[in-house]
Amino acid sequence: MYEGSLQDLIDALGRLPGVGPKSAQRLAFHLLQTDAATVENLAKLLLEVKQKVKSCKTCGAVSETEMCNICSDTRRDLTSICVVEEAKDISSLEKTREFKGRYHVLGGVISPIDGIGPDQLRIKELINRVTTEETKEVIVATNPNLEGEATAAYLVRVLEPTGVLVTRLASGLPVGGELEYADEVTLGRALKGRRQVS
Amino acid sequence: MYEGSLQDLIDALGRLPGVGPKSAQRLAFHLLQTDAATVENLAKLLLEVKQKVKSCKTCGAVSETEMCNICSDTRRDLTSICVVEEAKDISSLEKTREFKGRYHVLGGVISPIDGIGPDQLRIKELINRVTTEETKEVIVATNPNLEGEATAAYLVRVLEPTGVLVTRLASGLPVGGELEYADEVTLGRALKGRRQVS
Repeated sequence: MYEGSLQDLIDALGRLPGVGPKSAQRLAFHLLQTDAATVENLAKLLLEVKQKVKSCKTCGAVSETEMCNICSDTRRDLTSICVVEEAKDISSLEKTREFKGRYHVLGGVISPIDGIGPDQLRIKELINRVTTEETKEVIVATNPNLEGEATAAYLVRVLEPTGVLVTRLASGLPVGGELEYADEVTLGRALKGRRQVS
Repeated sequence: MYEGSLQDLIDALGRLPGVGPKSAQRLAFHLLQTDAATVENLAKLLLEVKQKVKSCKTCGAVSETEMCNICSDTRRDLTSICVVEEAKDISSLEKTREFKGRYHVLGGVISPIDGIGPDQLRIKELINRVTTEETKEVIVATNPNLEGEATAAYLVRVLEPTGVLVTRLASGLPVGGELEYADEVTLGRALKGRRQVS
């Protein structure tokens, strides 16, 4: 539709996740009207992130140093490890301010359809941490869907020999939600996981 | 939440239109996992677009050359000019394959709230084109909202002395739509603009 570099930019933006052709066009025209310094800064940041950001060698989270901020923070609880699928899940958990331990990023979930088995995930590294560090609890915070549950079940099995306590995030009604709009599986879980309040 | 350059990239992406904090994080993590060549290409395109893409000196559309593809295409009808708010509106009109004339980009609409008057738009250039080129018809294709209608009314007034025929895009029911879901203003316009079919 457009000439040369503008169309190339629209195509490149359109390949990003969640960006359709219309959004890509809108973004490209926005960038055309943005001052050059801002666009140059964005281009610089894209290159910088690829060069600087690596994986933490302990937990697998994103980090610009060998060990990430959380793993190198001595004030954090060394006895509990929260296992997440992706590095970005850590920020969601950190925002709750409820967890003071450290994390372990699996790098995905077991998914036979996508050809991802336990060996493609950082499970060996997790078992290694549990046996060498003074770990008392492993909280499995994979997503509450089919693959996440299967991965959690697998982790329970492979962690059994270490004798560590393995827990799973609670499933139930979202806070602020309504029973009327909850699906039956979630409501069933909320019933099963009911807590004594008296 | 994140360290250094990753957080900077998330912030920069979050300032783009239609990209919220969650989408910005998702995009940044996607780019982290994308191969370096693709990200470098995106960065290169961002810089290239800012350097190469200019305005066509005739119609004001985006172009890498002094005159855009449409203005320099001698097979197009030189007697009709379609006036649009923004350069990106041209691609929507071109996709219809119904218009064979040329375009004129206003660069916005008259909007006193935003401090945009006729002088900030390319209206003088339009009158100049109408008087010097062999224009027979000006199709006003500004958006069918308050500002677009006001701008269209203004254009009708200033173009009157030139004697050119000024037309406006039809308002009515969208094709494939249903009367039940049409708002009353649109339905009223559809009634007013009814066509004889017998």
